[in-house]
Amino acid sequence: MQYKPGLHLLLNIKTSSVNELSLSLSWKNFIADQISKFKLTTVGEAFHEFEGGGFTAIHGLTESHVSIHTWPEYNYCTCDIFLSNYKNENSNIVKEIGKAVVDFYKSTDFEWKEIER
Amino acid sequence: MQYKPGLHLLLNIKTSSVNELSLSLSWKNFIADQISKFKLTTVGEAFHEFEGGGFTAIHGLTESHVSIHTWPEYNYCTCDIFLSNYKNENSNIVKEIGKAVVDFYKSTDFEWKEIER
Repeated sequence: MQYKPGLHLLLNIKTSSVNELSLSLSWKNFIADQISKFKLTTVGEAFHEFEGGGFTAIHGLTESHVSIHTWPEYNYCTCDIFLSNYKNENSNIVKEIGKAVVDFYKSTDFEWKEIER
Repeated sequence: MQYKPGLHLLLNIKTSSVNELSLSLSWKNFIADQISKFKLTTVGEAFHEFEGGGFTAIHGLTESHVSIHTWPEYNYCTCDIFLSNYKNENSNIVKEIGKAVVDFYKSTDFEWKEIER
């Protein structure tokens, strides 16, 4: 039987929340709250702020990863949420965090793609 | 016009290369070579080795990210390669690295999913 780790959600988000696209600070607080709320475990993180605005953040989790890349000049970001079900069934948590990310960016124009891996 | 950052490749790989699934050292060397070969820029990395074998590695790049999660007990790993075209057209590099990852794991049984974001 082929192992199927879990659900990977890819979000492409259009947003007018330029402050939340430009600097990573509010994202850091937001995602730390989500990771805590759903009892996920961070094993490593990396952040990069681009000159002129925009950032990349990647969050390694025992359950897999969350990533975000922002382009404030295009009112745009991409976010990935991939959680394996190795120890717990996490598919609903992937979707809950996805909804929270869309709310965080106050977006009404986004692509939501679920891939079972 | 909607901004389209670039190509995201999702690989699900079945492999008998248990050593390369168990410890991250050879992956670290392999991916560092790829990042150098294609003149990509690392902005942060995170690694986690699981007790009993298997690892997670995420590589933040100015061009976006590479991630890998391995499950040696299932002869399995998932790898993501996502490079934006902000400064250069990187779609072919995504595919070149993807082919190199499949070769690295000597896999003949893998899923290759290209998503234009």
